[in-house]
Amino acid sequence: MENDLKVFSGGANPGLAREICEHIGIPLSRLAASRFSNDNLFVQIQESVREKDVFVVQSFTQPASDHIMELMITLDALRSASARRITAVIPYYSYARSDKKDAPRISIAGRLIADLLKTAGANRVLTMDLHADSVHGFFSMPVDHLTAMPLICDYFRDTLDLSNTVVVATDAGGAKRVGRFAQHLNVSMAIIDKRRISDTAVRQGLVVGEVSGRDAVIFDDEISTGSTLVSTVETLEKAGVKRIFVGATHPVLCGRAVQNLKEASITEIVVSNTVHIPEEKQFPNLKVVSTAKLFARAIQRIHTGESVSALFREEPAQSAGAN
Amino acid sequence: MENDLKVFSGGANPGLAREICEHIGIPLSRLAASRFSNDNLFVQIQESVREKDVFVVQSFTQPASDHIMELMITLDALRSASARRITAVIPYYSYARSDKKDAPRISIAGRLIADLLKTAGANRVLTMDLHADSVHGFFSMPVDHLTAMPLICDYFRDTLDLSNTVVVATDAGGAKRVGRFAQHLNVSMAIIDKRRISDTAVRQGLVVGEVSGRDAVIFDDEISTGSTLVSTVETLEKAGVKRIFVGATHPVLCGRAVQNLKEASITEIVVSNTVHIPEEKQFPNLKVVSTAKLFARAIQRIHTGESVSALFREEPAQSAGAN
Amino acid sequence: MENDLKVFSGGANPGLAREICEHIGIPLSRLAASRFSNDNLFVQIQESVREKDVFVVQSFTQPASDHIMELMITLDALRSASARRITAVIPYYSYARSDKKDAPRISIAGRLIADLLKTAGANRVLTMDLHADSVHGFFSMPVDHLTAMPLICDYFRDTLDLSNTVVVATDAGGAKRVGRFAQHLNVSMAIIDKRRISDTAVRQGLVVGEVSGRDAVIFDDEISTGSTLVSTVETLEKAGVKRIFVGATHPVLCGRAVQNLKEASITEIVVSNTVHIPEEKQFPNLKVVSTAKLFARAIQRIHTGESVSALFREEPAQSAGAN
Amino acid sequence: MENDLKVFSGGANPGLAREICEHIGIPLSRLAASRFSNDNLFVQIQESVREKDVFVVQSFTQPASDHIMELMITLDALRSASARRITAVIPYYSYARSDKKDAPRISIAGRLIADLLKTAGANRVLTMDLHADSVHGFFSMPVDHLTAMPLICDYFRDTLDLSNTVVVATDAGGAKRVGRFAQHLNVSMAIIDKRRISDTAVRQGLVVGEVSGRDAVIFDDEISTGSTLVSTVETLEKAGVKRIFVGATHPVLCGRAVQNLKEASITEIVVSNTVHIPEEKQFPNLKVVSTAKLFARAIQRIHTGESVSALFREEPAQSAGAN
Amino acid sequence: MENDLKVFSGGANPGLAREICEHIGIPLSRLAASRFSNDNLFVQIQESVREKDVFVVQSFTQPASDHIMELMITLDALRSASARRITAVIPYYSYARSDKKDAPRISIAGRLIADLLKTAGANRVLTMDLHADSVHGFFSMPVDHLTAMPLICDYFRDTLDLSNTVVVATDAGGAKRVGRFAQHLNVSMAIIDKRRISDTAVRQGLVVGEVSGRDAVIFDDEISTGSTLVSTVETLEKAGVKRIFVGATHPVLCGRAVQNLKEASITEIVVSNTVHIPEEKQFPNLKVVSTAKLFARAIQRIHTGESVSALFREEPAQSAGAN
Amino acid sequence: MENDLKVFSGGANPGLAREICEHIGIPLSRLAASRFSNDNLFVQIQESVREKDVFVVQSFTQPASDHIMELMITLDALRSASARRITAVIPYYSYARSDKKDAPRISIAGRLIADLLKTAGANRVLTMDLHADSVHGFFSMPVDHLTAMPLICDYFRDTLDLSNTVVVATDAGGAKRVGRFAQHLNVSMAIIDKRRISDTAVRQGLVVGEVSGRDAVIFDDEISTGSTLVSTVETLEKAGVKRIFVGATHPVLCGRAVQNLKEASITEIVVSNTVHIPEEKQFPNLKVVSTAKLFARAIQRIHTGESVSALFREEPAQSAGAN
Repeated sequence: MENDLKVFSGGANPGLAREICEHIGIPLSRLAASRFSNDNLFVQIQESVREKDVFVVQSFTQPASDHIMELMITLDALRSASARRITAVIPYYSYARSDKKDAPRISIAGRLIADLLKTAGANRVLTMDLHADSVHGFFSMPVDHLTAMPLICDYFRDTLDLSNTVVVATDAGGAKRVGRFAQHLNVSMAIIDKRRISDTAVRQGLVVGEVSGRDAVIFDDEISTGSTLVSTVETLEKAGVKRIFVGATHPVLCGRAVQNLKEASITEIVVSNTVHIPEEKQFPNLKVVSTAKLFARAIQRIHTGESVSALFREEPAQSAGAN
Repeated sequence: MENDLKVFSGGANPGLAREICEHIGIPLSRLAASRFSNDNLFVQIQESVREKDVFVVQSFTQPASDHIMELMITLDALRSASARRITAVIPYYSYARSDKKDAPRISIAGRLIADLLKTAGANRVLTMDLHADSVHGFFSMPVDHLTAMPLICDYFRDTLDLSNTVVVATDAGGAKRVGRFAQHLNVSMAIIDKRRISDTAVRQGLVVGEVSGRDAVIFDDEISTGSTLVSTVETLEKAGVKRIFVGATHPVLCGRAVQNLKEASITEIVVSNTVHIPEEKQFPNLKVVSTAKLFARAIQRIHTGESVSALFREEPAQSAGAN
Repeated sequence: MENDLKVFSGGANPGLAREICEHIGIPLSRLAASRFSNDNLFVQIQESVREKDVFVVQSFTQPASDHIMELMITLDALRSASARRITAVIPYYSYARSDKKDAPRISIAGRLIADLLKTAGANRVLTMDLHADSVHGFFSMPVDHLTAMPLICDYFRDTLDLSNTVVVATDAGGAKRVGRFAQHLNVSMAIIDKRRISDTAVRQGLVVGEVSGRDAVIFDDEISTGSTLVSTVETLEKAGVKRIFVGATHPVLCGRAVQNLKEASITEIVVSNTVHIPEEKQFPNLKVVSTAKLFARAIQRIHTGESVSALFREEPAQSAGAN
Repeated sequence: MENDLKVFSGGANPGLAREICEHIGIPLSRLAASRFSNDNLFVQIQESVREKDVFVVQSFTQPASDHIMELMITLDALRSASARRITAVIPYYSYARSDKKDAPRISIAGRLIADLLKTAGANRVLTMDLHADSVHGFFSMPVDHLTAMPLICDYFRDTLDLSNTVVVATDAGGAKRVGRFAQHLNVSMAIIDKRRISDTAVRQGLVVGEVSGRDAVIFDDEISTGSTLVSTVETLEKAGVKRIFVGATHPVLCGRAVQNLKEASITEIVVSNTVHIPEEKQFPNLKVVSTAKLFARAIQRIHTGESVSALFREEPAQSAGAN
Repeated sequence: MENDLKVFSGGANPGLAREICEHIGIPLSRLAASRFSNDNLFVQIQESVREKDVFVVQSFTQPASDHIMELMITLDALRSASARRITAVIPYYSYARSDKKDAPRISIAGRLIADLLKTAGANRVLTMDLHADSVHGFFSMPVDHLTAMPLICDYFRDTLDLSNTVVVATDAGGAKRVGRFAQHLNVSMAIIDKRRISDTAVRQGLVVGEVSGRDAVIFDDEISTGSTLVSTVETLEKAGVKRIFVGATHPVLCGRAVQNLKEASITEIVVSNTVHIPEEKQFPNLKVVSTAKLFARAIQRIHTGESVSALFREEPAQSAGAN
Repeated sequence: MENDLKVFSGGANPGLAREICEHIGIPLSRLAASRFSNDNLFVQIQESVREKDVFVVQSFTQPASDHIMELMITLDALRSASARRITAVIPYYSYARSDKKDAPRISIAGRLIADLLKTAGANRVLTMDLHADSVHGFFSMPVDHLTAMPLICDYFRDTLDLSNTVVVATDAGGAKRVGRFAQHLNVSMAIIDKRRISDTAVRQGLVVGEVSGRDAVIFDDEISTGSTLVSTVETLEKAGVKRIFVGATHPVLCGRAVQNLKEASITEIVVSNTVHIPEEKQFPNLKVVSTAKLFARAIQRIHTGESVSALFREEPAQSAGAN
């Protein structure tokens, strides 16, 4: 039955896709992606997929529009080439951040992209640590929603004196995620209460909860420019924390992020490999844990029709909301 | 053009519907709802709706399944009777609470009901204070999402010494909502950090943030049995708060709720009328503010094609995410 | 392949579901259904259904809205848990009675519910004795439409002197069904011609056809309050029938039905178990024939891809319109 | 607003379309229909329909496939030419007869065609005397369902001694329709009970009800070959009726129908003009009543958004199930 | 697995369907198609197709509307009889000619029919030599698009002196197809440049390219009345060609086609059997090559999930755009 | 009614959008487009569009994926902000080039993007000179398809001695377009017959038709790198043409295009402004004709519901296939 299973990779993170295939024990299937001179993308699937169970790995990293379009054209090519079932594996679904109407006349793009993926031919989605739990409900197809949180927890469990640690959310919106993380590590939590003074200015945040004299782990779903992180670090330092650690699933690391993070008083940053980090962006106290085994297990279980949630019960890693 | 506008009411909250119509200055349109002996629901629209702009007001209150089925049959009857546009006005969308997969093999019913309403004939939805902002994205049709928060804020602004008040979330999941409320009142915030010890037991919550010696306003989207509220009140009392107030949009008040709330040390509870409170459930320190004018204005603006968000800018009341 | 087949039961008729499973030789699969305090229904599928062929048994009995909502939430949970195929087994589809527009501005709810079931995730439907044959056409998915008529026929064949029996329809709308039944038993038929005098009053019916001195079998699809049946019994008695029997598939038996039927001059009433009859509603001359074996056979044949219509040709039982 | 209304005619019954337009007081709009040499149909709309309210009149008469394809191509041309709303006016919807699964592995083509019309671009349907009431529910768009029964009733009211008249259904399936007709005329009813002896042979029917010495009106929805009618006439003659009349909405009159009807002992046959009867098929005792005024009124009311059901209340003509 | 595969034939070309089945080595499956007296088509599938992989062969030949309707009713019957997958095999898709808007307010019927086939139940399409390549994109389901061009090429390769042959397109629109054909045979090409003088008159065409003294092969996708062909022959004769041959996939041959072709100075005409040519239309210099083997291979590969494009690489025959 | 009409511009060609608005006599409506640090696009509509008739102008120019995503997010924002009707105005629809399956296992992306635009909220499309006429049929919504050909023709009519001019297609696929152009100018035509020697090598083309001693106008739909054009120029020079002109609608001009064109022996190049040409890419013998007036007229006519095809009949400009 394994010869029925094919994994393709879009251009965003082929390293992760290859690592996933190694864990499964199959070669990465071949496709050729190119760009016409008028900037049209072109994808050709280079092996027969008739009646196969196909997975396409593509994170929505920079350049995001190209990676999304490439994924959709690949899905359509697979569908018209008669694949039996097509699963879009999206380790980093960036548009999950566009999950509400917090201003008039905007798109909830997280829902729009979910609908577009369906139109393009996806039959199911496998993803990780969506910005909000309810983004799961934006999809009209089955979604398996994994989490890298246990991998990151494991790391800190070995590193920290948990009896004197507090987990910190960078704003009230992150309290829920951080609360779950604090529960995992069995430590207390705090949040930064940021106030908007005007449309453009945000007052320095206030710490809600006890942090003084403790090690603090700032926990978030993604790090993009790192500026929120930096201001949180400053707030925590003023509030008298001992050391500061950071945990986050998606290392988007754009703009001045690396510079910002290197300069900030952070002892260690733990992220996953849902987003590819090129060599030049890596630095000593940035620790990357791999999600490849987790994705490989999930793909195998989806393929064979075993329970994905059952898998994670026997392991330290746990999946919120996987079926 | 007003004669083009018709407002109907389902069986859940005809009082609110009538009040809305008074604000608009039109009579409530007539429909006859009944039940066959085999328990089939039957709805007949009793005036022509051809080419009319029709709104149906129905909260998903107890018995919720009947109220949802009644709404869907009404929507279908309106569609097949050639209404030009049909807006489901759902002051209390109870299933917004089913907004994520926090256990394996469950339905995200908040999304399911959104899809069912579309199948039944709704062209748009007007609702209030959904449990999570992103539930907005569950709907594939335009949604105007109002909030009763400014109405409730106004009440506390007149009642409390805001220089010594703290707003409290009953758990980490409510931090975001409470943060917004705290920002409105310009007061500080705290959250109750609850920990699950096992699948069934929840440890008494810890207060994260400063509450001692202050007036506390517990703020939530809905009150159902009131048991979460009661345990929060107890936690806050132990933590030394002065007085305790409660603000919530949806007074579901089921089971022993009224008894619980009367017995708890709560100075005053402020709720809206999205859920009808029968006379026997009312009690002295339960204050009800009406959302009828807000709904009426929104309906008129939807009908005439004016901006709904613009309306709320000129007023104390504000709408998050209305278009 | 049998381990690929799973049968679940909604709350309406678990006895029938268990009996069906016994005939198939598999255990009834487990789900947990409950109700939140705000009256939201909650369903959790308690075993993996990935890639399984799943059947959910649910009759639309009282409380019908709850049973329909429960079915839809179950279907959605199964779909998002990656079931391969989902068949809604609806022994009693009550809304088949809402099959036409006999008044202006109403819903043909039999069609609406069919569309809602599809939206909720049903891939096919297995049902029995729909009120009208063409309700089959309301579904946009494959339907297997069984009939309990042969089971009921068999019973009367053993009981009656068919040379002096007439089958009677309670009104002109039932003539077609009764004609088919008469053909099965090879006896003559009569109908009650009821006339509506005004919107509310119906004149006592006239007997069309010969009934005097014969045993009469009143045949209908369902018995709800029994009042139609009682007035038909009275009409037939005046017309001089010998004994009166009743045959009907769906024993809805609501309101004063049991009282009415016990008091009427009916020798015996034969119904099926598509609707669960609680102990307290049973009475001596009410005979229940089981449809479980028929449903079990149909489910097995649907599962293995054998002809459902072929099955019934080798047996006394026959299915109208099954594929 | 009338200049916003356009009525087109397919090739099936342009006479009726023109008569409808005369009643409305507008010219029939122009389209050119032709056939390529490879038998492809081609339709060009010959006036701008942008933002117009368009009606297309087409009965499904012989050659039915061509008339259905022509209608669908016309609907698609109108849609892509930006018509605001498109109503398919189908005076005779022949496939309403394919309304159930009375044999295994067949299509319920009445439903299929309803779905195809929607795919082709119809936004609503206006039709007359569908074979079964529930065929209305096959359509997923609004349907106005008129009836010619009052027009035919009026005719017999002037012609017959109603105190000695019985209305007769040609089989049990027609009992419901005939019951309604009998109620209209306030006369009694009878049915012919036909029995199928084998798959191919039908035993001569038995009369259920009193007919001897009375005038009989056989009432049906359509007359195609007339053979059912002829055998009913023979059965009634043997049963001793005085005179025989026939009423039917759709005069399909195919094959040997005219010959059969002329030779049968029928005093008068009253039909409508939903199906065009060419000169050579007309004969002295065939009376045709026009439905054009009824269609014209319905179209005007659909166009202006007035109640269609309200219209028929003030008039002798009545519509079952119009909105 | 072969016993899972069933091939049915519509009424258009049963000879081809039988020949296809012989190549596959299975019997043609049985269906009964008939016509009710009111001209409604009726199709009954005469063997169980539950969970089978079903192919229906139907060309859109005269009478095209009947053949299309018959196909759609068959597809619907198969779907509701629970076929696992349904492929419409359409050797000649006549409406591919309606592929653009070359006049205002017309239907692109090639797209409309593609949508109707999907609504009727087709899951995929297998077709041959569509009039334009992009018609492939009209279908929202997978299409395998075969070509008979290699079969026709092979014939000419054996017949002609390719060093002195030119391939000719009957108009500029056919240049692309003819260019591909010329490339296959490695000969030069020419086109007839036709000019429209008014809406109805077309000026005699001019030859663009060198043809004098050479053998010319006029190549087109279909021959319907043959009048374009005849005028092209005349133009080429005036331009001094030696001999004239004709190659075309679809021999529609309607109206005076046979007469025209016999009288024209054409040495030999090579067509395929996608359209059935009755005995009386055959004539000596009309050569028919069979596509049955090609269809058989494609069906087998679709059935077993092997690459269809791979197949044609090992053979002289090649398929443009098959997956 | 004009105040009901709003035109927005995406980021691809705001100059054209502003010019269109000037012709209509309305200001360009405002939207704010930006990019989050994680590369997510964000669009906010900055004025109310409730019940408005909205047009969004966006060409698919480089970076094409961003421009397509931006358009889709804008469409979704407009839809959820309750715009009455949304027309995507796409002067250059680049993916029209992906219109067929000329290799196995590829996407017909021109169709895919058409479906995505519909999912994103477009109700109609207004576009210009699609690569192939039948791409029109890829859209399931109404399309108005304009052409810049008359504008370009007008230019050459004033410039050339038409009695000694030939229009040239760069390959057989362009023959149809060029044939139409030749008909417009009433001059003769020629084509370049290019042969593929292997998968990567194309043999130098052969001229089919008479060009020696004449002025040649190479006519194509778009110019991207210009390399095809350059090789055509070389072929024509060898064939002895006098002067060479070029006409093309879409000046994509990417890569080394400008350099190539400047160096080639081309007297003048005439293009339209569907693609914005930045100052640094302009050069003396590149003549740009504006399509703004044509788009403005079409938008006005779509808005007011007048015939778009009628408009172009009274003018030199003509539209192929507009309704």
